[in-house]
Amino acid sequence: MTQVIQFKPTDDQFAWTFGGVAPVMHITSGTVLDLYTEDCFAGKIRSESDLVSISCKFPFLNPQTGPFFIAGAQPGDTLAIHFVSIEPARDWAVSSTVPLFGALTSTHTTATLQPPLPELTWIWEIDKAENTCTFRAKDSDFKRALPLEPMHGTVGVAPANLEVRSALVPDTHGGNLDTPEMKAGVTCYLGVNVEGALFSLGDGHARQGEGESCGVAVECAMNTKVLVELIKGVSTPWPRIESDTHIMTTGSARPLEDAFRVAQHDMVTWLSELLDLSVMDAYQFASQAVTSPLANVCDTNYTSVAKVLKSYLGDKQPYAGAHRHLREIALSL
Amino acid sequence: MTQVIQFKPTDDQFAWTFGGVAPVMHITSGTVLDLYTEDCFAGKIRSESDLVSISCKFPFLNPQTGPFFIAGAQPGDTLAIHFVSIEPARDWAVSSTVPLFGALTSTHTTATLQPPLPELTWIWEIDKAENTCTFRAKDSDFKRALPLEPMHGTVGVAPANLEVRSALVPDTHGGNLDTPEMKAGVTCYLGVNVEGALFSLGDGHARQGEGESCGVAVECAMNTKVLVELIKGVSTPWPRIESDTHIMTTGSARPLEDAFRVAQHDMVTWLSELLDLSVMDAYQFASQAVTSPLANVCDTNYTSVAKVLKSYLGDKQPYAGAHRHLREIALSL
Amino acid sequence: MTQVIQFKPTDDQFAWTFGGVAPVMHITSGTVLDLYTEDCFAGKIRSESDLVSISCKFPFLNPQTGPFFIAGAQPGDTLAIHFVSIEPARDWAVSSTVPLFGALTSTHTTATLQPPLPELTWIWEIDKAENTCTFRAKDSDFKRALPLEPMHGTVGVAPANLEVRSALVPDTHGGNLDTPEMKAGVTCYLGVNVEGALFSLGDGHARQGEGESCGVAVECAMNTKVLVELIKGVSTPWPRIESDTHIMTTGSARPLEDAFRVAQHDMVTWLSELLDLSVMDAYQFASQAVTSPLANVCDTNYTSVAKVLKSYLGDKQPYAGAHRHLREIALSL
Amino acid sequence: MTQVIQFKPTDDQFAWTFGGVAPVMHITSGTVLDLYTEDCFAGKIRSESDLVSISCKFPFLNPQTGPFFIAGAQPGDTLAIHFVSIEPARDWAVSSTVPLFGALTSTHTTATLQPPLPELTWIWEIDKAENTCTFRAKDSDFKRALPLEPMHGTVGVAPANLEVRSALVPDTHGGNLDTPEMKAGVTCYLGVNVEGALFSLGDGHARQGEGESCGVAVECAMNTKVLVELIKGVSTPWPRIESDTHIMTTGSARPLEDAFRVAQHDMVTWLSELLDLSVMDAYQFASQAVTSPLANVCDTNYTSVAKVLKSYLGDKQPYAGAHRHLREIALSL
Repeated sequence: MTQVIQFKPTDDQFAWTFGGVAPVMHITSGTVLDLYTEDCFAGKIRSESDLVSISCKFPFLNPQTGPFFIAGAQPGDTLAIHFVSIEPARDWAVSSTVPLFGALTSTHTTATLQPPLPELTWIWEIDKAENTCTFRAKDSDFKRALPLEPMHGTVGVAPANLEVRSALVPDTHGGNLDTPEMKAGVTCYLGVNVEGALFSLGDGHARQGEGESCGVAVECAMNTKVLVELIKGVSTPWPRIESDTHIMTTGSARPLEDAFRVAQHDMVTWLSELLDLSVMDAYQFASQAVTSPLANVCDTNYTSVAKVLKSYLGDKQPYAGAHRHLREIALSL
Repeated sequence: MTQVIQFKPTDDQFAWTFGGVAPVMHITSGTVLDLYTEDCFAGKIRSESDLVSISCKFPFLNPQTGPFFIAGAQPGDTLAIHFVSIEPARDWAVSSTVPLFGALTSTHTTATLQPPLPELTWIWEIDKAENTCTFRAKDSDFKRALPLEPMHGTVGVAPANLEVRSALVPDTHGGNLDTPEMKAGVTCYLGVNVEGALFSLGDGHARQGEGESCGVAVECAMNTKVLVELIKGVSTPWPRIESDTHIMTTGSARPLEDAFRVAQHDMVTWLSELLDLSVMDAYQFASQAVTSPLANVCDTNYTSVAKVLKSYLGDKQPYAGAHRHLREIALSL
Repeated sequence: MTQVIQFKPTDDQFAWTFGGVAPVMHITSGTVLDLYTEDCFAGKIRSESDLVSISCKFPFLNPQTGPFFIAGAQPGDTLAIHFVSIEPARDWAVSSTVPLFGALTSTHTTATLQPPLPELTWIWEIDKAENTCTFRAKDSDFKRALPLEPMHGTVGVAPANLEVRSALVPDTHGGNLDTPEMKAGVTCYLGVNVEGALFSLGDGHARQGEGESCGVAVECAMNTKVLVELIKGVSTPWPRIESDTHIMTTGSARPLEDAFRVAQHDMVTWLSELLDLSVMDAYQFASQAVTSPLANVCDTNYTSVAKVLKSYLGDKQPYAGAHRHLREIALSL
Repeated sequence: MTQVIQFKPTDDQFAWTFGGVAPVMHITSGTVLDLYTEDCFAGKIRSESDLVSISCKFPFLNPQTGPFFIAGAQPGDTLAIHFVSIEPARDWAVSSTVPLFGALTSTHTTATLQPPLPELTWIWEIDKAENTCTFRAKDSDFKRALPLEPMHGTVGVAPANLEVRSALVPDTHGGNLDTPEMKAGVTCYLGVNVEGALFSLGDGHARQGEGESCGVAVECAMNTKVLVELIKGVSTPWPRIESDTHIMTTGSARPLEDAFRVAQHDMVTWLSELLDLSVMDAYQFASQAVTSPLANVCDTNYTSVAKVLKSYLGDKQPYAGAHRHLREIALSL
């Protein structure tokens, strides 16, 4: 029978980095984790009068629940994280602008001499019955209910090369990928870099536009169940995602075309292996078959996603059918 | 009654640039053009033994049907091009790799010392009854039927600033945007830069993946009907698209994050105007509502698209309802 | 004996593009042109109360003196432009900020929602006797005399591929390279794209910092003598420069790393040919020997320069000694 | 009297990261460190038959000598590192190509489907008497003696935000800046992020071209003396350098224009403070006065340098004359 472990971190148990943190728990492959994740502001922005630059303090942004040490995980293995469910833990969520952060502002590296944009906070109503989150304009009476599409901005393992990375960074180890594809029902594949993998999760979004242009999504604490499985002896170069309908690759880099290149390159490589295609045939096929939704164009690396329909795979099963297997377990819980 | 003008260019009537070419015809606003467009290879690549570097000669790539001089069009106006229908003119289409062109190869500007990838040609079968185009691998017996999703890679007007641009370039004047969104049923809005606008069209694709990573789509000659309408006194900063369900903006630039910025910036500006929102409210709303499918990451500028559901607009009609109006005419033809 | 032709354009004789303009004159290889060039503002900014956005009108910026049709020039040839002298034509020069233009501001493509920086004009005193140009701060009594280092921002020929480009654009045809290396005593090599080459010159700078971060240099009308020589049957892929001490290559592209790649790639290729080195040996040697001063990081393409000492070339003479030959003629004038 | 501490790490004493490593020693401000640094290959590449991919093992590249804990250093302070001398510790140095690393090759993030360039090693002779290092081509009998210009590619402190970064990374904490400006006689200013600063040094280069296009310099173990001084209560946003003649700023980011923007932005800010100029005046002055030599265009961030002559500063002394003071002590040693 599947083991379910509940864990809600206390205030001093959150992790602020991938790597460099002792595990909160040791678990075995096949465990279901029933987790509480705090929002990216550590729950400190609760009204429109709260401002990130005042209420939050670097580096205490984007708290992660974890890390979890997975028994037997070694560099070169793959960790499969199946998202069983992602449920907003509150009836409100929060978005904001943060000075010198986002795609439509200068930043600390896209440095200009212009003053920053105004720092503002928006509180969104979450209505689970209606499956909506509602935006209210600050400067007019405009409001709109948008679909609730809960997702996790951040999922990752400890990085390679002895590094410790801020939870705000997306890279080969996962981290702050900020893609709306990371939702309930998908499996995320992460390459293991250190013994035990050291998996963490955080940064729930009630929903997010592709590219996250203002730098912040509809941020919300979440109650999330993930099923964790270790795939031994199979490596994964960059985070991948599988849903019932699609396989997806991700690339995180700057400039954005490099993020695109990484994701498309990994998709070509993956299709070539799965379908026993020459690289050039896979390149051609992927070029015409792929969709390419942007994840974030605001973080320290930008993230691009490549998606291909699984119906094109015929009877080929990525990772020996791991997603299908995990999906079945999830549905049986 | 709507005037319909048929036009199939002779070999020496194609345009290879936007700007710098005398109009093939003068038309009035409200005309339906029933056009033949040749494929991007000028129809010279017809079998897997034809290679672009041998059969095609720069600058005679990407032939355009046009330009058309629209009576009364002046700088500062907008030209609305409604795509009534786009039908493959052949039962085959062609794709290829072109040396030092594409996203997953070095290029003349992303210059490396590595040799180019192999130059190859693939012929795709088009089955209109089944609505498919079929890929056949060169190095194995893999084949797959993909949905036929006809579109135009290139639509544009003469550029501003006395310039003449190759038909391979996407920019503010439109041109080689290479977005799968440019399909039957949508209206493309282009800012007019010169008297008469000088609208041309070409580069039909039986389908295309987002980003066009190998640099070439499933290229096909097309029979295309467009309904052309002049919107006086309304300017359009970058090409926009409207479908029955979405409004869309485009940005074309390098690096890719700038293409993203342009498209998102124009969407924020457009939403702010349409919904009478402050810029910061529009920024926040767009950030959470937008989808951001990539168009091309291979051309001389990269193109990014921002899409927002029209259901969020309430009763507001972009361009005073031009799309709805044109759609009705199109359905009545 | 060397023919010297004087030419000062009338107001309606300036060219605003490369390509698309009839030649002002036909000349033969070996001619010395003694030219007047107007400043990039067409001489319309003459005091600190003149503003570009008010006094100048797009596309009438960056007037070029030319184009000159060089008898016998054909695509595939190289035009050598030796700068005999560049003399400020006034005792003042002008710099400015231009809204949404420059490296430390958002722009039309690096689009942000921030307001533009203030638009300001600075008038610089030129003292030819002291060989200085003097900056005076607007908001304090700070002033500094900087060395007068006259150069041309723009030098080019008609582009390839039927294109016409604004004089504000740098690319393979030269154009608005904006490098301080383009000074008296150097020879610029440009590949010929169209019959007659159609060479033009403009955009004199009393001096310029590397990268031209505010987007504008110390702009000044110039009296400039160039010696024009046609090198038949030798092609030049991107603009190159030769001084008495260095060979230089240029690359113009976005993002800036691509401009860098182009310039370094051309230097590796050139060294490989000149020194009969394998490509990998030339790559290694250039990597350690090169200096890489930035030209501009503000124009529609950015420009990067690669420089290598000619002392490393031994007795090898680029372009069969063209620079040495032209230098000798220039010194004899 | 100045304290001089000699330190040559044993094989297991090198650091491979900035941050995350216990200090090898506690020192006080004013100490001279007389250090041995190993080359970036940890001394494992000693002949042309040694290859990086075989002899070196990730992450054990770019060994650092340190870190040193400086008594009293706190976040918000500045550490001044004055380079008293940098002397090659061997009579040979080594360069190489590394698969998928460098500016003129595809990489793991500028991902293409092309095979990597050949992996090669070159051994350079160092002649201290002649002050040269000599390149010998592999594929011909070409050889050239280039000036010996010893420098350190890597100098840095522990990063902020709880991070640990590979010694291959340049960023705000310094690290692998790879600029030829980091040579004997200069002072490097680094912002302190953690208690004790945790300063390390490594990656000596006998010389390096600007941009380090092949990804590797003329790598050499060094005997280096640095004078370390703590400047309390003065912060430094990005690494800065001061020589007898210039002040310099650095920016490390991708794309390269962002590295440029950071360096120029910091120079404008610094000049504004030093010369009591308005930001717009400082922007204008810097634009015309600056030189902008590239450091590296190959590392995980690219690094750009901005340089301004100290003669323009009048009697203003950066960091209250720290460089002049340290220079005097250094000359007295």
